[in-house]
Amino acid sequence: MISLGGNALGKTPKEQQFLLTKVAKEIVGLIKENHEVVIAHGNGPQVGMINLAFTESNATPEMPFPECGAMSQGYIGYHMQNAIGNELQQQGIKRDIASLITQVIVDEQDEAFLNPRKPIGSFYTKEQADQLKQIHNYTMKEDAGRGYRRVVPSPMPVDVKEKQMIQSLIKDNHIVITVGGGGIPVIETKKGLQGVPAVIDKDNASEKLAELIDADYLVILTAVDNVYINFNQPNQQKLTNITTFELEKLMKENHFAEGSMLPKIKATMKFARSGKTSVIASLKNAKEAFKLTAGTIITK
Amino acid sequence: MISLGGNALGKTPKEQQFLLTKVAKEIVGLIKENHEVVIAHGNGPQVGMINLAFTESNATPEMPFPECGAMSQGYIGYHMQNAIGNELQQQGIKRDIASLITQVIVDEQDEAFLNPRKPIGSFYTKEQADQLKQIHNYTMKEDAGRGYRRVVPSPMPVDVKEKQMIQSLIKDNHIVITVGGGGIPVIETKKGLQGVPAVIDKDNASEKLAELIDADYLVILTAVDNVYINFNQPNQQKLTNITTFELEKLMKENHFAEGSMLPKIKATMKFARSGKTSVIASLKNAKEAFKLTAGTIITK
Repeated sequence: MISLGGNALGKTPKEQQFLLTKVAKEIVGLIKENHEVVIAHGNGPQVGMINLAFTESNATPEMPFPECGAMSQGYIGYHMQNAIGNELQQQGIKRDIASLITQVIVDEQDEAFLNPRKPIGSFYTKEQADQLKQIHNYTMKEDAGRGYRRVVPSPMPVDVKEKQMIQSLIKDNHIVITVGGGGIPVIETKKGLQGVPAVIDKDNASEKLAELIDADYLVILTAVDNVYINFNQPNQQKLTNITTFELEKLMKENHFAEGSMLPKIKATMKFARSGKTSVIASLKNAKEAFKLTAGTIITK
Repeated sequence: MISLGGNALGKTPKEQQFLLTKVAKEIVGLIKENHEVVIAHGNGPQVGMINLAFTESNATPEMPFPECGAMSQGYIGYHMQNAIGNELQQQGIKRDIASLITQVIVDEQDEAFLNPRKPIGSFYTKEQADQLKQIHNYTMKEDAGRGYRRVVPSPMPVDVKEKQMIQSLIKDNHIVITVGGGGIPVIETKKGLQGVPAVIDKDNASEKLAELIDADYLVILTAVDNVYINFNQPNQQKLTNITTFELEKLMKENHFAEGSMLPKIKATMKFARSGKTSVIASLKNAKEAFKLTAGTIITK
């Protein structure tokens, strides 16, 4: 199970397509070694862009956030399966890849719903923010002096609705792109599953899916080669092999930044505690990370 | 193989979600009878809306047409799998459904590329049209006195890139939503598949996929109960059972409107000629259509 950051995908369709040709080479490197591969990806900048287009345009209806997430799964998924599919073909590897639109179930009682904290979309002035609050009942928060942004809850994933279909595809040796952007967040209601404006952390969603499909490895590919303690300080230290017990201690000493390395650490710890192996590595070291010769390797 | 019109899905996300709860009841009616079901859908109004949002918004990058199509597959696919999934759950049927982002291969040499005819997006004045032509190299055409619109080619589908994955899912008794909007049109290049601004007719794409996956029936669900000759005239006549031979004759007599019934007729004839059965019926008669007791049934 590979989890890939949305920030690695650039800001425009052209950039995304270009960057994915590079990502594709790394991923096909893994596929070549006959790994069964499931890929999750972030969608922060992309879902923000889609949301913004519909907010800015006066000629189109309001587009709810879960629907924007679904669009981002289509948009990123298409580019990703196209790029990886092309690379597979170039290298003469006869395996197929596609993206599955995926709903991830969250608990309506999750305390995240009481305290929305994940900023999405653009910055607004105080006046605009008040108006959005009034019209749409959005929660707006001041963001580090840069203006106001809408915030949504970031609940924990409970289940992946389409997990059986993902498993059917894996079983037949296909490569699946799924839980894009952490999945479309849905809650259980009397009438069935219903989309909610929220963002599920993609590393948490990947961890949940990795458990559900009984994956051997959870590999989180990010911008840095390793996890560090005392990051960006003179006594900075690279972590290579570490247990969840040691990580827990370092976490309590506040070595890992919230909204950045901390959620990755938590997700990998959760997976490692189930007796499996987690890795945090940079995309360019993906192949080595899978051989456990690069990145930070987390075990129970 | 079911093909469902994009116009049946309304104009806003709310409308689409509401209308799909009704569509879901019909589709689940079929699923209940243990049919293996693959669903294709149109995306005309929806991809137009997405395209328009990005054109109207000054804050977002230009979004190419294939990417808008991919977004529409995510958007419609999510609503569809959510609605049908909820209906399955309500009725206690343990089957899964999801949407696959799908690329449909077209031939770069298809003569449609020489003569783009499919209008997409909004209407523009002559001045705006000239500008769009200059900046983006769009082909703009005057549309029945209502202004200028961009036109794109509508080539024939040659192959469905993800067909093996669709078959894996069917084999495991899952329900697949695919070739949404006719699929994302891609051509074969030296570097692999590449998206092109074009629209593949969704009934043609459904017919192609129906052949590839060896479907028994191709059912095109539309707004009318049957195919008619002398439609909307005093001597209008309903067709119930008809052979491709008879249809060919009627087609030459211009009974079927281009851009409306004609492409459906052509797709069903193509499928029927392979020895299988095609049906054109209204959505509300879907269940009966599958039992061949409603709609127009086309055989070799």
